[in-house]
Amino acid sequence: MSLEPVLVAGSWTPAVDPAAEFSAHDPKTKAALPARYPVSSGADVERVFAAAGEAVAALRSVSHDARAEFLERYAEKLEGRAKELVEIAARETALPAEPRLGSVELPRTVGQLRQAAAAVRERSWCRATIDSKANLRSLHAPLGGPVLIFGPNNFPFAFNAVSGGDFAAAIAAGNPVIAKGHPAHPGTTKLLAECGAEAARASGMPPGLFQLVYGVPSELGVEMVADRRLGATAFTGSRAAGLRLKEAADRAGKPIYLELSANNPVFFLPGALAERGAALVGELFDSCALGAGQFCTRPGLSVLVDGPAADAFVSELKARFAQASPGTLLAAGLVSALATDVEQLVRGGARLLSGGRAADSERYAFEPTLLEVSARAFVENPSQLGRECFGTLHVVVRARDAAELLDVARALPGNLTGSLYTSGAGDDDALYSELEPLVRDRVGRLLNDKMPTGVAVSSGMNHGGPYPSTGHPGFTAVGIPASFLRFTALHSYDAVRPARLPEELRDRNPTGKMWRLLDGAWSQADVTG
Amino acid sequence: MSLEPVLVAGSWTPAVDPAAEFSAHDPKTKAALPARYPVSSGADVERVFAAAGEAVAALRSVSHDARAEFLERYAEKLEGRAKELVEIAARETALPAEPRLGSVELPRTVGQLRQAAAAVRERSWCRATIDSKANLRSLHAPLGGPVLIFGPNNFPFAFNAVSGGDFAAAIAAGNPVIAKGHPAHPGTTKLLAECGAEAARASGMPPGLFQLVYGVPSELGVEMVADRRLGATAFTGSRAAGLRLKEAADRAGKPIYLELSANNPVFFLPGALAERGAALVGELFDSCALGAGQFCTRPGLSVLVDGPAADAFVSELKARFAQASPGTLLAAGLVSALATDVEQLVRGGARLLSGGRAADSERYAFEPTLLEVSARAFVENPSQLGRECFGTLHVVVRARDAAELLDVARALPGNLTGSLYTSGAGDDDALYSELEPLVRDRVGRLLNDKMPTGVAVSSGMNHGGPYPSTGHPGFTAVGIPASFLRFTALHSYDAVRPARLPEELRDRNPTGKMWRLLDGAWSQADVTG
Repeated sequence: MSLEPVLVAGSWTPAVDPAAEFSAHDPKTKAALPARYPVSSGADVERVFAAAGEAVAALRSVSHDARAEFLERYAEKLEGRAKELVEIAARETALPAEPRLGSVELPRTVGQLRQAAAAVRERSWCRATIDSKANLRSLHAPLGGPVLIFGPNNFPFAFNAVSGGDFAAAIAAGNPVIAKGHPAHPGTTKLLAECGAEAARASGMPPGLFQLVYGVPSELGVEMVADRRLGATAFTGSRAAGLRLKEAADRAGKPIYLELSANNPVFFLPGALAERGAALVGELFDSCALGAGQFCTRPGLSVLVDGPAADAFVSELKARFAQASPGTLLAAGLVSALATDVEQLVRGGARLLSGGRAADSERYAFEPTLLEVSARAFVENPSQLGRECFGTLHVVVRARDAAELLDVARALPGNLTGSLYTSGAGDDDALYSELEPLVRDRVGRLLNDKMPTGVAVSSGMNHGGPYPSTGHPGFTAVGIPASFLRFTALHSYDAVRPARLPEELRDRNPTGKMWRLLDGAWSQADVTG
Repeated sequence: MSLEPVLVAGSWTPAVDPAAEFSAHDPKTKAALPARYPVSSGADVERVFAAAGEAVAALRSVSHDARAEFLERYAEKLEGRAKELVEIAARETALPAEPRLGSVELPRTVGQLRQAAAAVRERSWCRATIDSKANLRSLHAPLGGPVLIFGPNNFPFAFNAVSGGDFAAAIAAGNPVIAKGHPAHPGTTKLLAECGAEAARASGMPPGLFQLVYGVPSELGVEMVADRRLGATAFTGSRAAGLRLKEAADRAGKPIYLELSANNPVFFLPGALAERGAALVGELFDSCALGAGQFCTRPGLSVLVDGPAADAFVSELKARFAQASPGTLLAAGLVSALATDVEQLVRGGARLLSGGRAADSERYAFEPTLLEVSARAFVENPSQLGRECFGTLHVVVRARDAAELLDVARALPGNLTGSLYTSGAGDDDALYSELEPLVRDRVGRLLNDKMPTGVAVSSGMNHGGPYPSTGHPGFTAVGIPASFLRFTALHSYDAVRPARLPEELRDRNPTGKMWRLLDGAWSQADVTG
């Protein structure tokens, strides 16, 4: 069977001198699916960079409304082909067609594209700033080079490099995209990209608006993130792969935004456990097992203070893990990674309470796995015991007293989220006051009485956090318009003649509604004076 | 004579086991000044990090108004000791006491502190964002670790690590500061820090609010930027030193903001030269020679198209350079660096038109130096011919036609600024349209008919730019409030109980005037619902 083509300069074209080829696998049967995809070589990458460079130039004369129209048409096309999309994604990922793919993830993806389109039309996202006295004006502008997106395995639509949040943000900010699809779901990516390419053509976008390769040898990926012509990189995936790219991008001075797996600690304070421990067992288990634990924000670690309520909590949690049937994992690599995780955790002093082995021989699956470890052991070795584990694997850290619980918080590395469960009656308030600042500084999103899984596309979201959960604590990968700012450069205009200014910085408000920071106050007015 | 003390945890205390000692030199006589300063060892750095950690915690309960008060008191104290400050800075830097130090730089420094204080009281800078439906709320918050500031040699007040723009921004954003003073003006730094320490005490700030060492061995500096306890680093100085720190900070995942010297290209389009070439000679020379060329934004490169107007321009410029008397440089190292620059430029194909040698034996000085080079040579070797040269050294790049001028723009590395001079009659408009996008993507601030030297403290400023002029194209080192954002982490609050939210995110607008992004629109209102 011939290799599937890549999308270069707006055309589906055979890969040139592919470095290798691969197929996706059905996680439920481990069988290779029929379509064959190329791992692209430098020849494809050169073609892609050339077309992206032309698109950078062409996009300067594409109106905001046209760019918004592209995003909206794309959303429409995805809705039009929802059935096929869900079908192939379910086959490639084993994620449930319903409700997950069809009623949750696809609508979210479509919604993101539409929210991005609305923000493009509205224009306030660029934070136009005018100092009318000094005649200095600034705004956040496209990077002048394409955005390279590495999509993850776990959200075939919503984080896909050709349709997800990074894609929407990069295009909304005015940049072309070079997408590197994830090898676990190439057929889904291809179908998405077909919809996108049709939408791009219909909206008169430049041919290099977005392009797709299915894979590159890892050395070539390292070269791409450091390429002189690149604007920035967005990577969602494993810590090891992300940090390798970060090193190369940093050395070249190219921005790279990483969204790496995290442990998302959950602190159950004593009053909460006493008050509603049994209910919390269910909440924690469900959040940890959702999507077979394959969320960046699944809770991987909980911390509690010893006592009868904690004993009961752990024992009920253990029963939940033991009774649960293993979900199907996205890929073979995840099964072996979980086995290594268990081995490393046990070697570091954790005790296996449930699970711990691959679950089935005919599919990718691993037993829901629960471990416990003392706070003292955790604090001595937080990097080994706080390692990222992707799947339904949870570690309970048991502190002997509140002081030890605070020590665990101090030992935590940067995380995407941190959840604090407290009594409704105020019993935990004193401890909360001590704990909150420690957790706050170590996470991007702090939750109260709520599990972290599920990342709303909201202006108030931070899907980000301190290193090593991401590469920079000031940016979010989810949430409009803040996520756009990753893919911008700050452009200041000093005494530039009025007709030469971007519309957003001229005296007249270009839409009459756009918000601008005008002499220190946010305003929708024209500059007068 | 005993060593001057360092400022640790609010007290002036002897350096512990200093690694070395040094004196400043009078640039006008090359004579060592009497005071001796320590190069701090790891023992001092440990003390400083410990006190900074305590300050991080203590600052959580310091009100915004108290922090603003500190900045205001500091400004007052500086005004109260203006005479002494100007005197010692003039001695250590040879910059003119008037107008430069007394009437320009000190008022600017005081003004920055007051602008920062006003922004702290006003609070809008943190970009509080509320999604009232999802109950997700976010804001930019302090980093949870101190900001390490490396001050440059060229602005003893306005960029000093204990009083300058980075200092004001870091404190305004709620972080403690660890200052590494520049060894060229330690006495100035000491006097500033005395004012600051008094203001901090009087305002009830924690003892580790800001601390000062005068120097650290370079290996220790590399360790500091990567220290686990650090929030971020701000560095203003030479490219080589900055990139060494960047590598270490990047590897540790610690944000580092670099503000490195740049070449600040100026494009003189043919119509502008024909129309007012003689006046432009004066403008360019004055901008290049201001402060003996020791500005990050001095124009180091100009680009023009050959022809009679260009010939006249270069020949008059050469006369200006030849007639000018050499300014006094800040330090001995700058004299030898300029000699190396000339050698490298000539080796790369540039032709020396004027100057080129150290000027005086009794002071630090270098002849005003002008070179020219062909566009073709420049394009072939932009890194050698576009090297940063700090001082009154200017390279004219001569293009044979407009196409070559555009090629020069394409070859430029990232710069802080780019200036485009065009005819008032519209003769250059077509070329401007082609040139502007090329320059725009390569600079932080684009100017029309204006020299880049001088960086207004304005909300519309970008004192930043693409790598290698800085380490990230999205941030500015000058301009309030945008410069604060460098020293923040994005904090999202998800379903956090109302009384536990930071004041800025509660339903009630804390000042009644603070701007917040409320359900997608900037607003000064309370959240109602």
